[in-house]
Amino acid sequence: MRNFSDSHEWLSINTATLRRQEGREVPLLDILDQCAKQGVRAISPWRDQVAAAGLAATSRAVRSHGMALSGYCRGGMFTYTDAPGHLAARSDNRRAVDEAAELNAACLVLVVGGLPGALAGKAAYTDITRARAQVEEGIAELLEYAKGAHMPVAIEPLHPMYAADRACVNTMEQALDICDRLDPGKTGALGVAVDVYHVWWDPKLREQIARAGKSRLLAFHVCDWMTPTTDLLNDRGMPGDGVIDIPLIRGWVEAQGFAGYSEVEIFSQDNWWKRPGAETLATCIERHRSAV
Amino acid sequence: MRNFSDSHEWLSINTATLRRQEGREVPLLDILDQCAKQGVRAISPWRDQVAAAGLAATSRAVRSHGMALSGYCRGGMFTYTDAPGHLAARSDNRRAVDEAAELNAACLVLVVGGLPGALAGKAAYTDITRARAQVEEGIAELLEYAKGAHMPVAIEPLHPMYAADRACVNTMEQALDICDRLDPGKTGALGVAVDVYHVWWDPKLREQIARAGKSRLLAFHVCDWMTPTTDLLNDRGMPGDGVIDIPLIRGWVEAQGFAGYSEVEIFSQDNWWKRPGAETLATCIERHRSAV
Repeated sequence: MRNFSDSHEWLSINTATLRRQEGREVPLLDILDQCAKQGVRAISPWRDQVAAAGLAATSRAVRSHGMALSGYCRGGMFTYTDAPGHLAARSDNRRAVDEAAELNAACLVLVVGGLPGALAGKAAYTDITRARAQVEEGIAELLEYAKGAHMPVAIEPLHPMYAADRACVNTMEQALDICDRLDPGKTGALGVAVDVYHVWWDPKLREQIARAGKSRLLAFHVCDWMTPTTDLLNDRGMPGDGVIDIPLIRGWVEAQGFAGYSEVEIFSQDNWWKRPGAETLATCIERHRSAV
Repeated sequence: MRNFSDSHEWLSINTATLRRQEGREVPLLDILDQCAKQGVRAISPWRDQVAAAGLAATSRAVRSHGMALSGYCRGGMFTYTDAPGHLAARSDNRRAVDEAAELNAACLVLVVGGLPGALAGKAAYTDITRARAQVEEGIAELLEYAKGAHMPVAIEPLHPMYAADRACVNTMEQALDICDRLDPGKTGALGVAVDVYHVWWDPKLREQIARAGKSRLLAFHVCDWMTPTTDLLNDRGMPGDGVIDIPLIRGWVEAQGFAGYSEVEIFSQDNWWKRPGAETLATCIERHRSAV
């Protein structure tokens, strides 16, 4: 297991972590400048932030800072109720691949979608098996396109509390079953993003990380589970402040040969998003060394 | 699958559902009277409610109403940090068995506990594997005692969002693995409580219900998953108001031979607990017929 205690060369900042600073939305290019200033070598930006900054401008900024992208957030949301919805999801995901390629991302991360409409408050149907079938079909289609762009695709199993509205792929085992069916040769074109927040509770986590192996471990995300957790989405903790044994899980992932970035992704409405960005970033660096 | 549409003879009311009415705490014996008045044949009371009403008085009331207990809520909370904590958990669980027996409950439901201290805000340790070992040891000990009292014990896998603070048994598969180890003969002394709220998202739910079989399906609980869910604990929905396909899951359970009560258990700080009890109860009955 790599020693992170004296350097943050393997730290990546998911830009959602710094999206809000002192309660205000901060433009992506400013976030990149902040990261560069503190010696961060990698980021993982969100599509809406890139769209606001402009893809070309983002690409130039990334290159001029000499930064890597540990991933691109995010493709997915494959579920639909009608043919136009199906087509829209398909084209949107292809654009996400193109953007990820332009930014030279290590992978496109997929949040696969839940019951269509649920995120807006009203599910159009409640058959989660149907949603899962649509997701697998969507990934299969996208995979062909992504292979053409040489862009690896990482399924991110989301915590089961997001099954209804954000992602109906909820365990590593389920994600890897999909990988086995769609990429039986383990080519590296399809894999998983392991986010400790989503999977730490899983009694089968260790065995499923081993099952994934190096070729399917495409990304590693960290934050912490707070007790109490006051919000289902935006109360994620800084590594070390909650109950997840992050070094244990990182050890399992690295034992498989994973040698990429450890990406800090924190949504924190009432804590970190209210603080100055420099403080949040300095804390990410410190905790990367001491708690990851 | 039984037809519930024209009767509520197989409805049980978990008394937490009526614990608060119009924002006020209501005594257990009043709740029993309300249930009896609307023809409810079974309940599942909580220990704190029974303690407040008195065990003997509760027992008399249950008998005089001719009511069954679909279960008794709850034993568990097996995790500990020191020997006194270990002993306290053991004696408390034995008392829970005695109370369940006095009330002639169908089973004692176990919420097994999470990381010790986490429910109060600060986990004493973060090794969930250790917590799981303590839980299994606790169940093993309790099982011997419960057998002596002829009281079946039902492990309730809780939603993974409760893994830190309430229960580190989070899937049917995990609960049934414990059952296999502690009661390989499937004697009926140990099984599971299937609460759709906790397990609806699980891609392996159908196969694990089949694996459980009749001898291990000891209780069936219903409520609904709302979108959005605004609170991790107390925003559970009335059957039919959320996204869970309850009849589908009941069909799977009954296909194994389960023929017990369907127990409505709703914690709802901002909705049902604010309404008059008669309205909540009438809605439970109506939804038992139309949405369960």
